[in-house]
Amino acid sequence: MCGIVGIHGHPEAARLAALALHALQHRGQEGAGIACSDGGTVRTHRSLGLVGEVFGSQDPLEELAGSVAVGHVRYSTSGEKALRNVQPFTVRYRDGQVAIAHNGNLVNAGEIRGRLEQRGSIFNTTSDTEVVLHLLATSIQGTFVNRLVDALLQVEGAYSLCVMTEDTLVAVRDPLGFRPLVLGKLGDATIVASESTALDLLGGEVIREVAPGEMIIVKDGGITSLQPFPRRRRHACIFEHVYFARPNSNVFEQSVYDNRFGWGQRLAKVAPIEADVVVPVPDSGTPAALGYAFESGLTFKQGLIRSHYVGRTFIEPSQQIRDFGVKLKLSPVRSVIAGKRLVVVDDSIVRGTTSRKIVRMLRQAGAAEVHLRICSPPIVASCFYGVDTPTQTELIAHSMSLEETRAHIGADSLAYLPLDELHAQVDPETPATCDACFSGVYPVAPRGSDPNQLPLFENDEPSKV
Amino acid sequence: MCGIVGIHGHPEAARLAALALHALQHRGQEGAGIACSDGGTVRTHRSLGLVGEVFGSQDPLEELAGSVAVGHVRYSTSGEKALRNVQPFTVRYRDGQVAIAHNGNLVNAGEIRGRLEQRGSIFNTTSDTEVVLHLLATSIQGTFVNRLVDALLQVEGAYSLCVMTEDTLVAVRDPLGFRPLVLGKLGDATIVASESTALDLLGGEVIREVAPGEMIIVKDGGITSLQPFPRRRRHACIFEHVYFARPNSNVFEQSVYDNRFGWGQRLAKVAPIEADVVVPVPDSGTPAALGYAFESGLTFKQGLIRSHYVGRTFIEPSQQIRDFGVKLKLSPVRSVIAGKRLVVVDDSIVRGTTSRKIVRMLRQAGAAEVHLRICSPPIVASCFYGVDTPTQTELIAHSMSLEETRAHIGADSLAYLPLDELHAQVDPETPATCDACFSGVYPVAPRGSDPNQLPLFENDEPSKV
Amino acid sequence: MCGIVGIHGHPEAARLAALALHALQHRGQEGAGIACSDGGTVRTHRSLGLVGEVFGSQDPLEELAGSVAVGHVRYSTSGEKALRNVQPFTVRYRDGQVAIAHNGNLVNAGEIRGRLEQRGSIFNTTSDTEVVLHLLATSIQGTFVNRLVDALLQVEGAYSLCVMTEDTLVAVRDPLGFRPLVLGKLGDATIVASESTALDLLGGEVIREVAPGEMIIVKDGGITSLQPFPRRRRHACIFEHVYFARPNSNVFEQSVYDNRFGWGQRLAKVAPIEADVVVPVPDSGTPAALGYAFESGLTFKQGLIRSHYVGRTFIEPSQQIRDFGVKLKLSPVRSVIAGKRLVVVDDSIVRGTTSRKIVRMLRQAGAAEVHLRICSPPIVASCFYGVDTPTQTELIAHSMSLEETRAHIGADSLAYLPLDELHAQVDPETPATCDACFSGVYPVAPRGSDPNQLPLFENDEPSKV
Amino acid sequence: MCGIVGIHGHPEAARLAALALHALQHRGQEGAGIACSDGGTVRTHRSLGLVGEVFGSQDPLEELAGSVAVGHVRYSTSGEKALRNVQPFTVRYRDGQVAIAHNGNLVNAGEIRGRLEQRGSIFNTTSDTEVVLHLLATSIQGTFVNRLVDALLQVEGAYSLCVMTEDTLVAVRDPLGFRPLVLGKLGDATIVASESTALDLLGGEVIREVAPGEMIIVKDGGITSLQPFPRRRRHACIFEHVYFARPNSNVFEQSVYDNRFGWGQRLAKVAPIEADVVVPVPDSGTPAALGYAFESGLTFKQGLIRSHYVGRTFIEPSQQIRDFGVKLKLSPVRSVIAGKRLVVVDDSIVRGTTSRKIVRMLRQAGAAEVHLRICSPPIVASCFYGVDTPTQTELIAHSMSLEETRAHIGADSLAYLPLDELHAQVDPETPATCDACFSGVYPVAPRGSDPNQLPLFENDEPSKV
Repeated sequence: MCGIVGIHGHPEAARLAALALHALQHRGQEGAGIACSDGGTVRTHRSLGLVGEVFGSQDPLEELAGSVAVGHVRYSTSGEKALRNVQPFTVRYRDGQVAIAHNGNLVNAGEIRGRLEQRGSIFNTTSDTEVVLHLLATSIQGTFVNRLVDALLQVEGAYSLCVMTEDTLVAVRDPLGFRPLVLGKLGDATIVASESTALDLLGGEVIREVAPGEMIIVKDGGITSLQPFPRRRRHACIFEHVYFARPNSNVFEQSVYDNRFGWGQRLAKVAPIEADVVVPVPDSGTPAALGYAFESGLTFKQGLIRSHYVGRTFIEPSQQIRDFGVKLKLSPVRSVIAGKRLVVVDDSIVRGTTSRKIVRMLRQAGAAEVHLRICSPPIVASCFYGVDTPTQTELIAHSMSLEETRAHIGADSLAYLPLDELHAQVDPETPATCDACFSGVYPVAPRGSDPNQLPLFENDEPSKV
Repeated sequence: MCGIVGIHGHPEAARLAALALHALQHRGQEGAGIACSDGGTVRTHRSLGLVGEVFGSQDPLEELAGSVAVGHVRYSTSGEKALRNVQPFTVRYRDGQVAIAHNGNLVNAGEIRGRLEQRGSIFNTTSDTEVVLHLLATSIQGTFVNRLVDALLQVEGAYSLCVMTEDTLVAVRDPLGFRPLVLGKLGDATIVASESTALDLLGGEVIREVAPGEMIIVKDGGITSLQPFPRRRRHACIFEHVYFARPNSNVFEQSVYDNRFGWGQRLAKVAPIEADVVVPVPDSGTPAALGYAFESGLTFKQGLIRSHYVGRTFIEPSQQIRDFGVKLKLSPVRSVIAGKRLVVVDDSIVRGTTSRKIVRMLRQAGAAEVHLRICSPPIVASCFYGVDTPTQTELIAHSMSLEETRAHIGADSLAYLPLDELHAQVDPETPATCDACFSGVYPVAPRGSDPNQLPLFENDEPSKV
Repeated sequence: MCGIVGIHGHPEAARLAALALHALQHRGQEGAGIACSDGGTVRTHRSLGLVGEVFGSQDPLEELAGSVAVGHVRYSTSGEKALRNVQPFTVRYRDGQVAIAHNGNLVNAGEIRGRLEQRGSIFNTTSDTEVVLHLLATSIQGTFVNRLVDALLQVEGAYSLCVMTEDTLVAVRDPLGFRPLVLGKLGDATIVASESTALDLLGGEVIREVAPGEMIIVKDGGITSLQPFPRRRRHACIFEHVYFARPNSNVFEQSVYDNRFGWGQRLAKVAPIEADVVVPVPDSGTPAALGYAFESGLTFKQGLIRSHYVGRTFIEPSQQIRDFGVKLKLSPVRSVIAGKRLVVVDDSIVRGTTSRKIVRMLRQAGAAEVHLRICSPPIVASCFYGVDTPTQTELIAHSMSLEETRAHIGADSLAYLPLDELHAQVDPETPATCDACFSGVYPVAPRGSDPNQLPLFENDEPSKV
Repeated sequence: MCGIVGIHGHPEAARLAALALHALQHRGQEGAGIACSDGGTVRTHRSLGLVGEVFGSQDPLEELAGSVAVGHVRYSTSGEKALRNVQPFTVRYRDGQVAIAHNGNLVNAGEIRGRLEQRGSIFNTTSDTEVVLHLLATSIQGTFVNRLVDALLQVEGAYSLCVMTEDTLVAVRDPLGFRPLVLGKLGDATIVASESTALDLLGGEVIREVAPGEMIIVKDGGITSLQPFPRRRRHACIFEHVYFARPNSNVFEQSVYDNRFGWGQRLAKVAPIEADVVVPVPDSGTPAALGYAFESGLTFKQGLIRSHYVGRTFIEPSQQIRDFGVKLKLSPVRSVIAGKRLVVVDDSIVRGTTSRKIVRMLRQAGAAEVHLRICSPPIVASCFYGVDTPTQTELIAHSMSLEETRAHIGADSLAYLPLDELHAQVDPETPATCDACFSGVYPVAPRGSDPNQLPLFENDEPSKV
């Protein structure tokens, strides 16, 4: 996953972009970058690290003068981890400079790259995003916007993009609208960002989401909206609501907090259990746990406290401490846990490793029973649209039955939210979300993997959502 | 405030100390240090920064070989902010090397320092802790332990100390027991730490707290306990439970989480209000808000989301964003707040600045009413025992009435927990806590301040607690 | 100027490359980089700073595993100063990875770049070197070597290159042989480097220089030499001998030290002066001053001592010290200077600023007379082949007569070495050097400057040198 | 060795001190520090590294506001290498703050330290300098100056000191005047520094040296000179002239360059040899080599070129390169060396290791004969007064005869300058220098070493020099 932002028309564009990226930090902690134009020259500063590390000192922001900016926080999806893959990518081509920030994943980037290499293109990164720049530069269209449309008509997959030239900001979402992008205002300045929380921090206001397949062009103070792509049914990533987005964000024009709370309520109905206390796995499991407690009437308590200071590296003692990693992040509250029958609510299970450690930690703190409730269905398939899920064989729900999973994790009982309940909360009438990770049904065919592992492809039909 | 740890008898003492300091990071973010002895030489590594920054790389820990260690995280209380004031302090004197880590504040350090300077002592730091080393070195007693007792008999105030020589670890608390210190085990190794959460992280077990006035000496595998000081009534800092300690810790042998939850329940009884939802100020207000919701029957919801990525510095835009600082830390959840009557629960109010910003943020997110409930009494007096409170005149409750405070903060109603309810939760029968910040009654006379500002002093009587 | 190195067939190729770059550090202090291949993957580490800073720690060298490497030290010639312009450039294209390190300057890079952009190429740097990679990638030739020849046939100007793929090292010089490149051996390993001093440091032996227009291919232990370009007369840069190369190097198969000493002798003959002592401007003026002293019979003394510790930045006091910059670098020896008539010998004068400061420093130290002797002719024209000379209008000899220059600098007399004497030392019979900076005669037409400023172009004829 | 500086009465005192330390960098490369007072508070910045690294950025100098400063560059003599031993040491005591910078070595520091520890002093460093601060603080004298005199009357050995309080600068040399210290002016500001080169860089002027046993007090613009110590014969360190000081400095009011040149002339007379060329070992051997060449009539040539970029660390390849260390520093000039009979002139031989590598390097470059001429006598005894010589048993001249040394080094002939010729140059009439390293005669008895290794002690008699 990644987070992106675009600013147009503010004299401190780079500074606002840095703050917006800070608000989007949960979408990528590996690296951060900002490109900013003073009208004539686009300058870029990118580095591995958190936003506060990359832009915490005065110097890089002072060099990034100008009123148009795009920014990016990166969580490695495709491309090896390295400085050269940190976005925005800024290059020079026929018409000047262009910078790009991308959230999503292009499924046919490898094919296009092979084609471009055959005609003599050279690549500086291992990222799928770089192909968009090559397609833009080699397009025979006559204007920047038409060249960008031409380029995007050739790629398939998930993309929310902020692209800028010396004086123009373009924001665009793929026709299926996998990844979020919201349009807003701060005074006269136009701002686009992955989530509404970025606008909240800046004190700006949300206008609406950028629509799937919409291209918004901001230039000379004017805003133009195009719909250059064929109409497709909307496939907004449901995992944004399950786990990825911040609970205070509105994503795809729905409240993340409300959906998680609602899923918790639904889970309480379909998977009730006799217990003493509802305990969330903080922080992403908390709203669902509150919903579960509300619906079930059980008491909600914080049985696990999350540390604010988890850095990305810590030196383990050679005499390894059991469950070391999870202990750095979560600490049990003995007085809440000891002797109690717990309903532990989490958002999802991927490999099952962390869940197993948490259950063990709770039992060591004296839990009488541990009933694990997961507010989403089992994850059975990898994501090819920008969420960093492991390969299918590493997913516990791919290789183990429900009972095997429960035994492996060590819980007294285990229940997931059914897929229909997931949809009943967010798109009850017309399907408008991508649930490929839960259903194995891919709206855009992935490439370059073992076809036997891949399930059937859904038929695409135009939708009104 | 500060956090301290001592390890004796583990081959990776420094590494365990680093992990323990990480668990105590909430007690001090300014600097961190560890001294470690290999039996012959005490080596020290100290630096400004978080534990993960100071000890995150392999190199400093590899230099700190040995099985005896003391560590410290520092939050500046007395002494200007500078590397030279980062503890542990390690010096050489007549009998070899000694390192010291101190949590607390000595009220007569200035007097002693003046006396020592008269006899020709020189000081490398501006910290009160350094006088203990001078008193130790100038003591005419014949053994290290007796010299340390001799030194501590001369100081007044709050101290939990970890002191080490080349082969010995000494842990000691002042006779009133202001600051916490817990004794535990990890296999054959002895561990003392400010809070039990450090032992939880290491996978060790808590034995008991170090008693007020107790001195524990660990050497050659043997543990000795002395009670070298005159008996005094216990005055454990109640603010540790109100705000400072982690909720999953046991402090002074009571659960921090339970006390906060209980205070929340009591507050619901004494200051009820008709409302739609209980919203905590995360993270320190959350357990109390849960208690308030539980008792009142109102729904608990997360109306404010806390960021995990608040660094210590960020560059503000020159066109200042309103309530910038608090926005970096907290974000409102509009769907929870909009149109609702909120009970907002926080642990305490110091200057009132943050509360005011939070109320404004909630109103901008559409709150219909904001009722502020504080789970401790008004803070009316400065702490002289190690908590970094501002001078009395900066305390809002010192200069404003309840109604003035409410108006200043902008809440629809404001209520504090009464002092008797605070005590009713933690020491209902025999007074055993210091509540100077709430009552203005100081168990040990502060020095060097305007005496007109200082209230009466309590009589000290021996207590059994 | 820049320095380059290529290594093939040594298990510690990157480490040797780092040492070789250290020996070539005088050729570029702005940045350094190394690309290294383990047979399958080319990894690159580049950074601004000195070689000892960029490669002084273990970590970057350990990542650069493999037996084929190219390295580069950069002194900005074309392209703004920035990390992205630090070489080697490593990219992926149709046939895999390729890395390039370049010393020189391509006069038609702008034209080619425009052409490439028209067909849709995008550029990551502002360096002329990047066009070679694009030409390589777009060549229709069938092998790597042929594609590289194809690319180089399209560029004009000065280049000594080290190019590598996953398993091959190619070293090549432009047909006129502007910039040096020497071929050598260390055991079974093949090494190419800008100057022989790199081989001396590694303990290797020099085989011969890479000939102008020669392409040497090292692969699987075998070395192949091609002469793919039309024969041209040799135009080795004479300024390498005047100033740039280290005196202990053999460059273009001549001793730098001997040439400088010889020029000093010639200068003593053509510009004698009655004086007490010959004083060099260290370090580059020292061999010539020794030659001058030897020929004239005057005593040679060190009247100026050079500091070993001149860093790249130092904070000037706001109450500026006169001649601050030159004082950081040079200090006068009063006992040598005071009351004496000095012959001060330097290698060249560019803007005249430093000479003026030196003369003033010597007079303040009590010099009776200061006679400046320059061991090369006046610099009257800019270099377009890789030496970082300023624009023509900044050259003192372009805008001032000899007498005006003398008066400006403040010397009692001033004499340059005549151009014919310069050649008499290095190519007495057949012209084989480029003297464009002294003569204004450019062997390859520069581009993109005011044509009125540019003098006539020499006719190119094949030469045997 | 170390270098020190003191500034009084200049608004940019710290900045001037940083520049002066840069000029004294050759006296210590391990660490640097500056203490500066704004009249009320003394602030200190110290760090391991070169002056340009420690003070190269704006920040530390801006914090060091004020017009009184002392500075120090450190080359470890006593005390382990560590940040805590980097000077100036700044402490608080009875009368306020005091900072000290020390060049030299106190032979009875261990005894005094033991005595101080008995009375309860604690030590923060392992440096001999710290005892001076303790003696100052414990003195019963009534004024700062008298306390300092009282302290210094108790120490024995070598010291040039810059000591400062909030408003006063004191410069003092030990009664025998082992280490240099020069007094100068820059406008109205008073400056003291180890060598005159610091004043040259600042554009100031030298007044005179601080006399042995003189104490200079600068306060409120007035300068006072005291002679508080018993008169002793002068014992200025002759090794300053042999090796340590910069050749452009005047040290002990004699020109370093002239003495080295003169020693070279004397050596040519007493140890002539038939040869083709005189080659110096740069840089310290160069003035002597010029003297040798001048006297002998032989041609002087640079046969070895010294690198400007020798950092303090470099990663050696595991397949070790022969004579790696010396090759990083020195490169042979083949055209000067090959086939020639060389007289190689160096200043001194300590262990013989480097000389041996140089001789081997010259033979590999084709030298026909290598005759080594050393411009000082054999070093037979360790220095206890501040020069970092190894223990006596490591000195080649202690354990080998002249012929054995020659054979070990591999030279065709070897000759030293006789001790009487050394003195004939600098103190021909009355002995006024310490030559303990050459003679084994110690003017102040060293302590704490094997007495059997130590030669006789000289009788001290007052001298007029």
